[in-house]
Order: sequence, then structure tokens, then C-alpha cells
Amino acid sequence: MHNIRGWLYQVLEAQKGGKWGRLINHGLLALVVVNVVAVVVESEHRVYVAHEQLFGWLEVISVLIFSVEYGVRAWVCVESGNVDFQHPLTGRGRYLLSPMALVDLVAILPFYLSFFFGVADLRILRSLRLLRLLKLTRYSHSLELLLAVLRQEAENLVSALFILCMLILLAATGIYLVEGHIQPDRFGSIPRALWWSTVTLATVGYGDVVPATIIGKLFSGMIIISGIAVAALPAAILASGMINELKRRRESFRRELVRAMEDGSLDFGRLRYLEKMRVKIGISRADARLVFEDVKEEIRLQTYVNCPHCAQPIVIKHPPGQIQVRPGKKQRDKGGGGMPKLS
Amino acid sequence: MHNIRGWLYQVLEAQKGGKWGRLINHGLLALVVVNVVAVVVESEHRVYVAHEQLFGWLEVISVLIFSVEYGVRAWVCVESGNVDFQHPLTGRGRYLLSPMALVDLVAILPFYLSFFFGVADLRILRSLRLLRLLKLTRYSHSLELLLAVLRQEAENLVSALFILCMLILLAATGIYLVEGHIQPDRFGSIPRALWWSTVTLATVGYGDVVPATIIGKLFSGMIIISGIAVAALPAAILASGMINELKRRRESFRRELVRAMEDGSLDFGRLRYLEKMRVKIGISRADARLVFEDVKEEIRLQTYVNCPHCAQPIVIKHPPGQIQVRPGKKQRDKGGGGMPKLS
Amino acid sequence: MHNIRGWLYQVLEAQKGGKWGRLINHGLLALVVVNVVAVVVESEHRVYVAHEQLFGWLEVISVLIFSVEYGVRAWVCVESGNVDFQHPLTGRGRYLLSPMALVDLVAILPFYLSFFFGVADLRILRSLRLLRLLKLTRYSHSLELLLAVLRQEAENLVSALFILCMLILLAATGIYLVEGHIQPDRFGSIPRALWWSTVTLATVGYGDVVPATIIGKLFSGMIIISGIAVAALPAAILASGMINELKRRRESFRRELVRAMEDGSLDFGRLRYLEKMRVKIGISRADARLVFEDVKEEIRLQTYVNCPHCAQPIVIKHPPGQIQVRPGKKQRDKGGGGMPKLS
Amino acid sequence: MHNIRGWLYQVLEAQKGGKWGRLINHGLLALVVVNVVAVVVESEHRVYVAHEQLFGWLEVISVLIFSVEYGVRAWVCVESGNVDFQHPLTGRGRYLLSPMALVDLVAILPFYLSFFFGVADLRILRSLRLLRLLKLTRYSHSLELLLAVLRQEAENLVSALFILCMLILLAATGIYLVEGHIQPDRFGSIPRALWWSTVTLATVGYGDVVPATIIGKLFSGMIIISGIAVAALPAAILASGMINELKRRRESFRRELVRAMEDGSLDFGRLRYLEKMRVKIGISRADARLVFEDVKEEIRLQTYVNCPHCAQPIVIKHPPGQIQVRPGKKQRDKGGGGMPKLS
Repeated sequence: MHNIRGWLYQVLEAQKGGKWGRLINHGLLALVVVNVVAVVVESEHRVYVAHEQLFGWLEVISVLIFSVEYGVRAWVCVESGNVDFQHPLTGRGRYLLSPMALVDLVAILPFYLSFFFGVADLRILRSLRLLRLLKLTRYSHSLELLLAVLRQEAENLVSALFILCMLILLAATGIYLVEGHIQPDRFGSIPRALWWSTVTLATVGYGDVVPATIIGKLFSGMIIISGIAVAALPAAILASGMINELKRRRESFRRELVRAMEDGSLDFGRLRYLEKMRVKIGISRADARLVFEDVKEEIRLQTYVNCPHCAQPIVIKHPPGQIQVRPGKKQRDKGGGGMPKLS
Repeated sequence: MHNIRGWLYQVLEAQKGGKWGRLINHGLLALVVVNVVAVVVESEHRVYVAHEQLFGWLEVISVLIFSVEYGVRAWVCVESGNVDFQHPLTGRGRYLLSPMALVDLVAILPFYLSFFFGVADLRILRSLRLLRLLKLTRYSHSLELLLAVLRQEAENLVSALFILCMLILLAATGIYLVEGHIQPDRFGSIPRALWWSTVTLATVGYGDVVPATIIGKLFSGMIIISGIAVAALPAAILASGMINELKRRRESFRRELVRAMEDGSLDFGRLRYLEKMRVKIGISRADARLVFEDVKEEIRLQTYVNCPHCAQPIVIKHPPGQIQVRPGKKQRDKGGGGMPKLS
Repeated sequence: MHNIRGWLYQVLEAQKGGKWGRLINHGLLALVVVNVVAVVVESEHRVYVAHEQLFGWLEVISVLIFSVEYGVRAWVCVESGNVDFQHPLTGRGRYLLSPMALVDLVAILPFYLSFFFGVADLRILRSLRLLRLLKLTRYSHSLELLLAVLRQEAENLVSALFILCMLILLAATGIYLVEGHIQPDRFGSIPRALWWSTVTLATVGYGDVVPATIIGKLFSGMIIISGIAVAALPAAILASGMINELKRRRESFRRELVRAMEDGSLDFGRLRYLEKMRVKIGISRADARLVFEDVKEEIRLQTYVNCPHCAQPIVIKHPPGQIQVRPGKKQRDKGGGGMPKLS
Repeated sequence: MHNIRGWLYQVLEAQKGGKWGRLINHGLLALVVVNVVAVVVESEHRVYVAHEQLFGWLEVISVLIFSVEYGVRAWVCVESGNVDFQHPLTGRGRYLLSPMALVDLVAILPFYLSFFFGVADLRILRSLRLLRLLKLTRYSHSLELLLAVLRQEAENLVSALFILCMLILLAATGIYLVEGHIQPDRFGSIPRALWWSTVTLATVGYGDVVPATIIGKLFSGMIIISGIAVAALPAAILASGMINELKRRRESFRRELVRAMEDGSLDFGRLRYLEKMRVKIGISRADARLVFEDVKEEIRLQTYVNCPHCAQPIVIKHPPGQIQVRPGKKQRDKGGGGMPKLS
């Protein structure tokens, strides 16, 4: 029983567990994709009416499977290394409130709601199933990295978009003042002008609304050019966020590495462990190698000093964290050729 | 009296002061938002005529409140830690010339001007109230970061936009030479062609003006492609500016931290102080943690060993770049585990 | 015989081999360009019919030459320094499966296939010849850098585009719900709406499909603005990838340099070797100079002074992180100018 | 005589020389701007005919002044610190071939050419005067920075645009295969399709040419999305180039600073010199401060060791480049509280 639970945990949360585990995970992945495709395709009315039953069954089956998955995950979460989730009751409660669990819930909830309370708009209900896409985020490390960066920089991004919105509002007001009386249906009020200024400053430029007068064009020209700088902010924020995030991860990998190399050597077991860490932390092989080189160099560092009591030479080795001291009998001189022995 | 002033200073400038303080700040925030919404909505003529009085009253009340705010801020500024503002007269004078104070002034000035001198164009006057948006900049740290970066890189951004403008002018001249005689109304002169080249090189591309001939399309094709590189400059400038700015801030936080940890430990008071610094300097928690780890490592690099020759205790200290060997009193060997004494 | 093979290897793989070598390489380059131009031009039907034979001969001759090139490369690959390719049979086999060899194969395969099996669509066959462009990648270092970065960041880029696609799908669904009944032919189903959302979120904005209702415009406005952040991800990923890649290359060049300067000096031969490394590693001269300065400084940090107590000479050496104090033979004071002996 | 030459050199090349110097420089600046404006305005035919003479005179006078400027610069260049230009003949020759001198030449050459050989197309001749804009590059440091980055990264940018062009060609071929028979006038051949693919992949998206079929839209959708990644390359290249360039400049400023602080202190004269260097190297004040802090820290570094001969403590100070040794009488312990004196 516990074995099953442990195995299921390995399969579902750690994406391990032999070919059966892979089978299950790929099955769930495929099911999500199939569902999304179904939502997209069945929105085409004539396709829907043609295979109404098929889509109906697919939905029922999917919800069934996802519900089982949801239950199982709730059941096995106590196996997790994370101590928060290990208590049979409160732990499971905490798990059910974790983002991924909520995503799983959202994937099935609409069906039950519509089932019990009936549906306002069938189309909306069906579309809600697209949220099952979110289940995919569980399966990619680099996706997790990007989301981490976006989360990290959320505040800055919001501020950047806020600045952009201020510029958009400004542009709308300007064009409303300049061309409001010429194209009243398009620029007759700020709310109407907002459509043009948004489309323009985002450099989408549909061309359905365009200034007509010289002054209008001069003004929009200035707005467009100054808009380039503001529209570049998000890229800048994300770039610096990305670089920082990767630096942090390399750093934490470095600490792992230093801990593992405390005595200056690495056996195979540790290497496997480090490789696992690397994947978990989510840095590229090349970066890991770079970090490794650095640490190795640090480890090589030695200091030759002399004991303040007995003038005898000492060699001090210091790997990043700690320090070793050994007698420096014969100093292996690298630099300046032959040197006299200390008597 | 002084208590009131001090409390008001805490509330308005440091956004502190218990739930009443929060109430006041959120009230002012809300009022700004309401004002902006009002400006946008009332620009829709029929909405305006429908609720003319409402908008009138809102304006009067808002100006009243903002005026009071302006006065109070001028009154309490002497409480600030900044010595510039502490003199009752000259200090207040300096404050009134500080950017934020000018923003507050701009938020109310138009009303009084129109009140005393009458209005040229009512729509313009109303639109000017949008400037009250600037009051929001006071309430966000990350917004302040972005504005700092923009200010820092202003010169480079201007140069980048200047290069872009040169390219735009070049493109306009080229298309005027190539298609001036074919679409005289659109490319018949450089000024007319500028509209097309601006819209094109900013990748807005309305499509209201498009080259017609093969040569024209060849030329614009080349311009468009070379434009991609130039249009990428602002993003590059801001990215590097962002990274530098954050590095500077981390650095100054690091100095704060080193100062606070001089004796290698942190009590709760200092931690609170550092947290305050962190928010003030405006770096993310993750970055702060990274800096903290580094400093801790630097500080930790003090080891107590004993000379392998004469077995006397030595202390080896090396803060950042510095190595120091001195006789130690008591041996607390941390580093090299059980190591044999060589007599 | 072997001389020829070695020379051909130098010519084809190392782009060396005197003016004849240059001639051959430039010839092959030119031929590729001519082929691409031919494909583009002959797609214009009336041009094709006018010079059908010319194009036919060009194709035959090109394929002939490229086939010879392919064969020769397969023959000479055993000369490569790379041990994988040195075995006459297995080595050549490995080479034929290497990316560049496959590119060469793809450049000629279509012709033979069509020759033996006949052609489904002549236009497609001709177009396939564009793949010969890939042969150019062999001749540029910076191109190789960019491709390395793209490969390095491929996973992140895919994730970023995946997020973008999720947003596109979301936008399509939203607009389908909002305007599906108003513009049924354009937004009547998610697949139809996808065209609009793709064109919009990529900020292309043709303007052939545009929301008509207020709600539709509000929704797309929000989508457009949030899209700016997501569309900025690839730039961020590539920027950080670029910076990392260059850092790694500088680092590996640094190691080369340190190895070459072990005894603190550089003769001409080593400089030539380093220059070769620099080009091979693909970092700019300016970066190389920067690395060089650093290493030089690190190496220079060796000073001959004498003990202020017993006036005996000491040598203080500190390469990168390491300090070493040892008795020195002869005093060659570089550092502290004329300093008084303290007896 | 020499005084005049020296003064003129200061004025023209170093933008110094009191208010008269400022007057001259601003005059030249203004003249360039006036010329550019004239070129733009007179391209409007009716404006030209209205003030034909005015424009004529402006041109003659401008060319006269620029010619004088050109001559004077050639005369005074021998005053430059750059030894290349100091020889009366060869030096002046070298100067005349320097980029800035060529820019000055290009600014006046067209006039003389047309004067001596007559003009093919008057409009083209007039437009050539826009090249006088290039004279402005002499007056901005940050502009010089950007141009340096663009030059530095030119090779990578070309490669990036080459990749983009390959993608454009691919897209054109694809759409030509897919929709060539449906919109023969737009996609009937690759050259025709190129216009669409260029406009699309640069995200300009005029909308004058748009795929019509489902397959065409599917294909362009894929192209558009993959295009986002490629179009992001230039931003990435420039960002990393910018960061590197600034790093290099900070580094060279650091070296200046270290040289100036060799004895660990700074007098006012050196500070002024450093400020001049800072502006010349073109890094921001904030960066300079950061570098300064670092160097100061480096200078503070001290090593406490013991003489290998007489076991007495020594203090080794090492500012980056060099090293000082002094007797460490009483070791000023910072770290661990009270410690026994060395007997």
C-alpha cells in the first residue's frame, strides 16, 4: 500500500518510475493536449454539430481522469520531502492550496459546477477548459525558469506597463485635442482615442485609425519615437531579471559544489548528485562547467606563511568555506627557479 | 502641535502612521485615480453634459483637498531627516522647488490660473488635470527604480533616438527621390515622406502609405532591415542601464551590510534596519539574500588552527582580499578536522 | 597523395592553403550565392521560360561540383585533429553524420532523388535548393557564435514561444467569445480568431482583421499591452544567453593565456598561437586585450622587498588568490621605490 | 601666429576656448541644423520656388563657411596631442584621411563637383547635403559610445541580419509555394513574395499584402512566431555589446585611477585630471564612483605575515599594481577582540 503510494509519488511528482511511470505521465500530457485541441476545434460550429457526441464523451472521460489524478496527487503528497505536506490532514490541506493543486482543481471544477448548477453560456464553459493548458507548466524546467523570472520582475514589469499606459493616455489626450474635431468618431473623446494610441504605442499599427492633419501626424510622430524607448523597458527588465536569476542559480549551485568538494575531490556518487542538483536548479551544462572550473581554481589556492612563534614555513590550503594547515617542508616554488632551503 | 506635524510627516512622506495614516494615503491615491477617470470620461461630450455639475463639484473638491495636501506637505517637510529641508524658511523654500513638490503644484495650478485669468480652451484645461497622474509616482519603489534608470540613461537614449531620426530622415529622402514623382501627394517632398518613414522604422506600419514601385520596395526593404538594428538600441541601452543600476544598489546595500556585521553577528534590531535599507535602496529580497550570503562567507573566513611545528595556536583571518596570521589564545579548530600534531 | 589530402583538408576545413585555397573557397562561396540567386530569379515564370536551358545547365554543373566537394570532404576528414574522424571507415562514417556533412548532403540530395524517382512538384524541388544557403554557415565565426547562442538557449526560447502561444490562444478565445457573433467570418471560431491574435501579439498588425465593438477593443487593448511583456522574453533570453556565452569564451581564452604566460613572458610564437585561439574561440580583439591586461596584472603581482627588521630579502608572490612569502636570493626591489633599511 | 593656431585647435577640436570658442562651435552647430532644415523644407517644391534665392545664398554661404572650417582644421591639426598628426606635411595628410575630416569633405564636395562638372539631378545633389548631419557626431560623447558599440558589434549584427534575411527568403519561398497560384500578382514569384515576408518578419505589417488561404495563414503564423526570436537577436547583440563596452571603459578608467592613487591619496589636481578622463572615456558619474569605491577598498588591503628569517611580524600593503612593506609593530586587530603582544 505504502509502496504504491511512494511509487505513485515518484511517478507523478518526480516524473520518475520506470516505463510505466513514463507511460502515465505522457498519457496525462497527451490528454491535456487532446483536450486543448478539442476546445479549439469544437469552437468551429459545424465541426461541433458533426461530432457532438464524440466531444461530449471526450469531456466526460477527461474530467474523470483528471479528477482521479487530482485525488491521487492529494493522496500521495504526504510522500513529498517537503515537510509542509507530510501531515496526513493539515499537510494535504496545505498541498490542496498550493498553486499546482489549484491548477488541477481549475481544470475540473467548471465541469462539476455546470453539472450541478447548469450553465449560463456553454461557449464560455467550454473555453474555460483551455485552462488545462496550465497543467503543462508542471513538465518543463526552463518554463519554470521563465515563470520565476516573470514572477521576480512582476513588480517592475507592472511599473513599466504603468509608464506605458501613462504615455498611451497622454497620446490619446493629445490626439483628442488635435484631431478631435476632424475625426470626431475616432478621436472625438479620450476613450475613443485610446484605441488608436494603444495600437500605435504597442507598434501594432493596424492602420484602421490614422491621424489626418499635419499637426496630428507631427504629434503622433513624436509620440511614436518616444514610445520606442518606453516599449523597450520590459525587454530591459526581463533581460536584467534573467541575468540575475541565472546568477543566483549558478551561485546556489556553486555552494552545492563547494559542499560536495570539501576535501577537494569528487567521487562518482557525488557527481551524480550534483548533476541532479544542476537539473533541479535549472542551469545549463556549460554554466555548470564554468562554475566547476572556478571552484577547482579556488580549491587549488594555497598560502605560504611562517609561524609567528617558530618562523617555520606553513602551507595554508583554503577551499572556499574552510581551511587546512600543513607543514610546508619544501616549498614547491613555481615562480622564480631555485631557492635556498630554510635551515 | 509638533506631535501632529511629526505624525503627519510620517503619514505623508514615509507612508507610515497606523491605520489612519494608511487611510489618508489610500484616500489621496483614490482621489487621483478618480480624477484621472473623470478627465477621461468627461471628454466624452454627452457624458459631460449629462453630469456637468457632478464633474464641476468633483473638480472643486479635488483641488481643495490637493491644495490642503500641498500646504501640509510644505508645513511638515521640516521634519524630514534631510538637512536641506529643516530650516523653517529656506528649508521649506528648497522643498517647494523639489520635483515632487512641483508635481503637487502642477496638479492644482491650472485650476487657479483659469480661475483668475479665465480659460483659453476648456478642453485643454481639463486635459491638464491628467498631470495629477504624476502624483502616483510617489507611491511605488520599482517605479522610482525605472525612472532612475531612464534618467541615468537619458543621454544615451537621446543619442539612440537621434540616430533613429537620422535614419528616418535618410529613409524619407530616399523614398522622396525614388517615388516622389509617382505618389506626389505622399512622397512628393521630404516632409511628406517623413510620415511614412517614421511609421515604418518604428515598425508601426499603419499601411496608409506604402511604396508602389519595385525600386521603392527594394529601398524600403533595405531600410526596414537596417532599421531593426537601430530600433534595438534603446532596449540595449536600458538593459545595460538596468543591470548597472541594480549592481550599484546591491553594492551600496553590501556596504551597509558589511558595516552592520562588523563583528560578524546580526541582532534583530540591525536586521530590521537592514530590511528598511533594502526596501529604500530598492533591491529584491532574492538579491539581498545573495549579497548576504557573500558577506557571510567573507566574514566566516576566520579560522583557528595551530602550527604543525610548534603546536602553538594561530589565528588566520582573511576578510575579502586580506590574509592575516597572528598567534591565537585558545584553540577552537574549525577547519581541518582531526590533524596530527607534528612536534 | 597524402600531401594532396592534407592540403585539401587545410583548404576546405581550415580555410587555409595559399591563394589556390582561397580561390577554391571563394569559388564555392560564389557558386552557392549564384545558386540562391538563380532559385529566386527563376521562380519568376517568364524569366524561367526565357533562360530555361541556362538554369538547367547551372543546376547540373552546381550539383556536379557540390557532389565532388562532398566526396572530397568525406575523403579528407581523416586529416582532422578531431580523433573521432581519424579512423578510415568509422571516422568517415561519423563525419558523414556530422551537421555540416548533412548540410552538404541536403544540398545535392533533391537533385538525385528527383533524377531517380521523378518529381512531384517541380517548384518545390527547385525551392529546396535554397537549403544550399546553409553551406554558408561554414564560413563565418560570428554566425557560428549566434547559432551557438540560439542552440544554447533553444529550450528557453521554445518555452518563451510556448508562453506566447498560450497567450495567443487565450486572446483568440477571448475575442471569439466577445465578437464571435458580430464578425462570425473572422472571429466565429477560435481557429479563425487565431489569425488575428497571432498577427496582433507579434505586433505585426496587418489591420485586415480588427475588433469592432467597444468591449472587443477594450479586451484587445489589454491583450496587446500584456503581450508587450511576453514578446520581450526572447530578447531577454538571447541577451542573457549572449552575455553568458561570451563570458564563457573569455574565460576559456583566459585559461589559454594563463597557460601560455606561465613564466610571465610571451614570445612571438605564443602570441601567434594565442591570436589563432582568439579567432577560433571567437571573441573580439577588445575583449582579448581586456583579458590580457587582467592576466598581466595577476602575474605582475610578484615583488622583491626586504624584511624591515632583519633587512634580509623576501619574495612576495601572489598569483590570483594566493600569497606566498619566501626568503629571496637577490634583492630586485620593484615595488616600494627607494625604501629605507630599518636595521 | 602659433598662439592663434593653438587657440583655434582648442576651440575646434577640444571644444574649449572661452565664450568666443563656444560661440564658434555653437555657430557651426546651428549652421548644420539650418542646412538640414533647409534641405528638408526646400524639397517642398512650392516652398522652393517661393524662396529660391534665399536657399541659393544659404547654400553658397554655408559651403564657404564649411570650406573655411575644413581648411582651418587641416591647418591646426598639427597642434593635436596625437603624434600621427604633428608632422606639417605627412601629419596633415593623415588627418585629411581621418573619418571626421572625410565627413567634413563630404559636406562640401558635392557643391564643388556640381559647380565644376554640372549636375545630373538637382534633387539628388540637394539631398546629398543631408550628409552634413554627420558633422554633428563630433559634438556628443554618448553618440560616440553608441557608434563604438555598433562598430564593435558590426560583425555580429550583420550575421544576425543575415539569419533574418535567410528566414525572410525562406518565408517568401514558402508563401510563394502555398499561395503563388491564388494571388499571382503578389506571391506569384519569390521576388514578389519577398516584399510581404520582409514587411512581416520586421513586424512592420503594412497589411497591403496578406495571405488569403487557411494554409497560407497557418504558414505565416508559424513564420511570424519564429520570426520574433530572430528579430530579437539584434537587441541581444547590442545589449551584450553595450555592457561589454561599458565594462571595458570602466576598466580603463580603473587603471587611470589606480595610477593616480599610487600612494593611496588624491590631491585636487589629480581629481580634476580624473574627471577629465572620466568624461573622455565616457562613463557615467555613478559608475566612476563605483570604480572609485572598489579601488579604495583594494588599496586598504593589507597582509600580515611574518618574516621567514626572524619571525617578526610584517605588514604588506598592496595597492593593485605595487607593494609596500613596513614593520607590523602592534597589529591593529579588527576582528577578534583583545590579543597578546608578540614578545
